[in-house]
Amino acid sequence: MKITEEPRDAARRRRDVLAKLRTRTDTWVATSGADGQPCLVPLWFLWDGAALWLSTRITSPTGRNLRDTGRARLALGDTQDVVLIDAAVRTFTAQEVPAVAADAFAERWGWDPRQDHPSYAYFEALPRAIQAWNGVHELKGRHVMRDGEWAAPPP
Amino acid sequence: MKITEEPRDAARRRRDVLAKLRTRTDTWVATSGADGQPCLVPLWFLWDGAALWLSTRITSPTGRNLRDTGRARLALGDTQDVVLIDAAVRTFTAQEVPAVAADAFAERWGWDPRQDHPSYAYFEALPRAIQAWNGVHELKGRHVMRDGEWAAPPP
Repeated sequence: MKITEEPRDAARRRRDVLAKLRTRTDTWVATSGADGQPCLVPLWFLWDGAALWLSTRITSPTGRNLRDTGRARLALGDTQDVVLIDAAVRTFTAQEVPAVAADAFAERWGWDPRQDHPSYAYFEALPRAIQAWNGVHELKGRHVMRDGEWAAPPP
Repeated sequence: MKITEEPRDAARRRRDVLAKLRTRTDTWVATSGADGQPCLVPLWFLWDGAALWLSTRITSPTGRNLRDTGRARLALGDTQDVVLIDAAVRTFTAQEVPAVAADAFAERWGWDPRQDHPSYAYFEALPRAIQAWNGVHELKGRHVMRDGEWAAPPP
């Protein structure tokens, strides 16, 4: 995306965020441990139009934290063109996960966690707040979603 | 960096991590709040040869978390060529910060937090553990530092 001095309006930011959710392959996933230790890893994701689906081992720090806290902060893109997502997270075992989500995930990645090690779980991350900016000139207006509500109408 | 199928050895990964610390301008900073809420933001940093120096407002979630927990997980680069750093963090006010660090920070960025709003503080993030990998083939051997000790001798 070309970065211009003119800050994007809320509608444009919403479109750009949705385009990133549809096209990006991975996201930074920040979580908190019960001991207050922050964790941060990159994970593949699938956007289903409402939520990001992730899969990792429930025995990893990120898997444990997602299950235990039900919260994540996600970052798409790079530090120059930022999308930050605060998400409410639901955890599913390979037995519980909705087939439509798991099938789409497997099709996208050519990897089906349901067929992998039994420690793999699925996580549905539903955005509750989103910030998007691509420079200091865009800090104002960066809150494109609050309490699950977009600042702009649907594109 | 060219990504090859051949995994890098510990010495090469150490050199690559140090090159990123010297040349990159910003880092993802993951922290945990007292309420267990994960936070994640991009911040400029300065590498002084031993630690990363950051500055943000002590009143922001990241500033509060860094001060209250003394911990951060940092990510340099992108999700395809990953450097993850677990750091012990010390907090300094604009009055307490060592002049050599604050002067170098101001010179690099053309912005001196000591001359900005009094809520700006400095944070010295000392790496305790570092992971580096640029693909699944490099997951083995990704721990290039543990307990503050590099896996390979100095370059």
